[in-house]
Amino acid sequence: MALSSQHAPRPKDEQLPHIVIIGAGFGGLRAARALRKQPARITVIDRTNHHLFQPLLYQVATAALSPADISIPIRRVLRRQKNTEVIMADVTSIDVQERQVRIRPPERSIAYDYLIIATGSHENYFGHADTWKTLAPGLKTIEDARAIRTKLFQAFERAEQETDPDRIKELLTFVVVGGGPTGVEMAGAMAEVARKTLSSEFRHIDPGMAHILLIEALPRILGAFPESLAQKALDELHRLGVDVRTNTPLEDVDEQGVVAGGVHIRTQTVIWTAGVQATPVSQELPAQTDRSGRVQVEADLTLPGHPEVFVIGDAAGSIQHGKPLPAVAPVALQQGSYVAEVIAQRLAGQANTRPFHYRNKGYMASIGRGYAITDLGKLRFAGFPAWLLWLVVHIMYLIGFQNRIMVMVQWAWSYLLFERRARILSVDESQSKRKRRSGKLSKQESGVGRTK
Amino acid sequence: MALSSQHAPRPKDEQLPHIVIIGAGFGGLRAARALRKQPARITVIDRTNHHLFQPLLYQVATAALSPADISIPIRRVLRRQKNTEVIMADVTSIDVQERQVRIRPPERSIAYDYLIIATGSHENYFGHADTWKTLAPGLKTIEDARAIRTKLFQAFERAEQETDPDRIKELLTFVVVGGGPTGVEMAGAMAEVARKTLSSEFRHIDPGMAHILLIEALPRILGAFPESLAQKALDELHRLGVDVRTNTPLEDVDEQGVVAGGVHIRTQTVIWTAGVQATPVSQELPAQTDRSGRVQVEADLTLPGHPEVFVIGDAAGSIQHGKPLPAVAPVALQQGSYVAEVIAQRLAGQANTRPFHYRNKGYMASIGRGYAITDLGKLRFAGFPAWLLWLVVHIMYLIGFQNRIMVMVQWAWSYLLFERRARILSVDESQSKRKRRSGKLSKQESGVGRTK
Repeated sequence: MALSSQHAPRPKDEQLPHIVIIGAGFGGLRAARALRKQPARITVIDRTNHHLFQPLLYQVATAALSPADISIPIRRVLRRQKNTEVIMADVTSIDVQERQVRIRPPERSIAYDYLIIATGSHENYFGHADTWKTLAPGLKTIEDARAIRTKLFQAFERAEQETDPDRIKELLTFVVVGGGPTGVEMAGAMAEVARKTLSSEFRHIDPGMAHILLIEALPRILGAFPESLAQKALDELHRLGVDVRTNTPLEDVDEQGVVAGGVHIRTQTVIWTAGVQATPVSQELPAQTDRSGRVQVEADLTLPGHPEVFVIGDAAGSIQHGKPLPAVAPVALQQGSYVAEVIAQRLAGQANTRPFHYRNKGYMASIGRGYAITDLGKLRFAGFPAWLLWLVVHIMYLIGFQNRIMVMVQWAWSYLLFERRARILSVDESQSKRKRRSGKLSKQESGVGRTK
Repeated sequence: MALSSQHAPRPKDEQLPHIVIIGAGFGGLRAARALRKQPARITVIDRTNHHLFQPLLYQVATAALSPADISIPIRRVLRRQKNTEVIMADVTSIDVQERQVRIRPPERSIAYDYLIIATGSHENYFGHADTWKTLAPGLKTIEDARAIRTKLFQAFERAEQETDPDRIKELLTFVVVGGGPTGVEMAGAMAEVARKTLSSEFRHIDPGMAHILLIEALPRILGAFPESLAQKALDELHRLGVDVRTNTPLEDVDEQGVVAGGVHIRTQTVIWTAGVQATPVSQELPAQTDRSGRVQVEADLTLPGHPEVFVIGDAAGSIQHGKPLPAVAPVALQQGSYVAEVIAQRLAGQANTRPFHYRNKGYMASIGRGYAITDLGKLRFAGFPAWLLWLVVHIMYLIGFQNRIMVMVQWAWSYLLFERRARILSVDESQSKRKRRSGKLSKQESGVGRTK
């Protein structure tokens, strides 16, 4: 392979149908790998250069793991797949009439024969993104996780130096918004940071006195789980000292704290896990979307009227047994495999007749060290055995053998010593955090200047 | 320990002399640990919350290691040391007359009986910091390493999408300024990234064609090493395909590239390892400084006229056999131990008579995978055995048993597979890089606003 600027495919490839996959999350990457032997050119486009194992992102946010432990370069995964190329770029629009995807930088169009839209989701601030997003970061990207990690550990550092008791109380109050699996896992991990990891490290404050609140608008946490398991998770959260407040809708977030259930809670650290919505690029498709912005697809996951366009994962509003499928990794993975199969059949000149059907293998959530809940349909259990299963499943699905080893070593360590090694606070990070709070960062991001 | 705002020491402690240590690098942290059994109160102040193993920072910059692998929370190291407290803050000034250190945030003064200044050094841009610093980041902090990592891997991503051959050439040209150990290690690692790690990952460019330049103003690289070893290092760099240009002073850095030895080299990636200077806070002490801003200290490392103030590590201009000691970790470590001993003697009412004497145990530098040079004075050797010794020494000196395991696992992996797992490029990072280049970030940093 020589240094060349030739972007056009070689002549013999040019004949091959072009499959474009937007997004290298669980769905997109699974589809790309499943298509590796097909007589087609495949292009995978992602905003970042890495596939991210989002289910463990809360462990990066609480310093148990490093970003590299749960990411793997997309090029690395697909490097031996000769029919596939990877582009790191933003997709700015999709023209399903012209069958083109517009990307940047640099600004250009890519034509496709088949398109798989696997762009995922981001936080849903329910109309308050402008003001709440900077104050209450979510947990979807590595940058999010680093921002939360900085907020969390910096709060203790500031409290240690503070003399005003009210201000100390405010700094040691942490609010997690949303009682789904991410919120529960985050609150549990934060309780352990405060009560275990940081104990005996400070001289003026007792980190164990930290007040960790989990706020949920609905009558109970973990609505997707059976009530018996959710109750067990609640008991475990109470044991860890988490203040769980159900029936408590969030009313406002400002510089001083949050208003929830009519009560103002002073805090500097708010974490948003209250809901997701599909990314803008998928919401702008010519199709119906549900209230989370997810595209309503046909039974074979195609866009209505466009059998060559597939929408999978969090971007798709797939209905099964009258209910929308949850925005979780197993759904995206199965959909990725399914659309790869459908496309393979079409490439072979066969018609697909089998609609997508999600096989629910179960749900799990971990609540701190050594405790999890598992719902395998008929079999439901909680506690240490559930946590061991949680461990095995997460290690199994993590891509990259080295990542698996690294995560296992660090988990063993955390389990034995409560240590969390990735507690890095640098000078620059705390400054960028201040800018983030002030909302200046996002303004700069839109008007990218290059002047000196 | 209860939640309390009491910052004053408890009555019985108040009688004890107060030792303040500024900086938890090699020198400061060593001194703090050596003073753990002394009848004194010790306060360690650092801008960050972690001790950083700087000699391996180039491995973070080239994605072989994660930041957490070479850092350890200062509080963690000192948590069992009951006479010691840690403050994460900036030191804004030192008043040696009033025996006070001024810190922020929050703005306040800390009185001391003994002061150890171990504030280290940062890049020396020889009067061009204003314009060059943003264009040519150095390698002193985790933030620096992340910035370089982003520049390095993003250049390949951009080149892959570029069609203009000149622009591709510019993107795949990497300039390391400074032929000292850091520059040599950095250039060697970058060559391996291009020729090994990234090979077969791209479809339009050949990363192996990357042009890596090492620019040195002096007639040869590795001036601190014997000429025979420097020559071996040079041969190894050539074998790795590094374009080493000696007698080539850097004349300018701008948005398009560098001017060196009268030649303009177009590049987007410039890395600065050409020299260090002491941090401003130590330069403002009432004492002579050398041309690197290092404080000229007495034979016992005290500030002239101030036997209660010690300056150690990169901040100190310690002279031995008529030559200044190099700004390296072993010097700082030995000085940390020495001043702890001097203070212990004083606390015991004894006078110190022994001046500081640096025992040179040797110097080493690694050049890529499996090759290093080692100068142990009489014994000088290069190649694989030297690299094995380099490995053992670096693992030995790394603080934190878990860090040692993690680094060993990753090195084994890199050695076998050339894999570098920490190649994370996120959307936000590339945007912050653009801001960094445009110089806007630094302006924002100075005027920290909190308005919404």
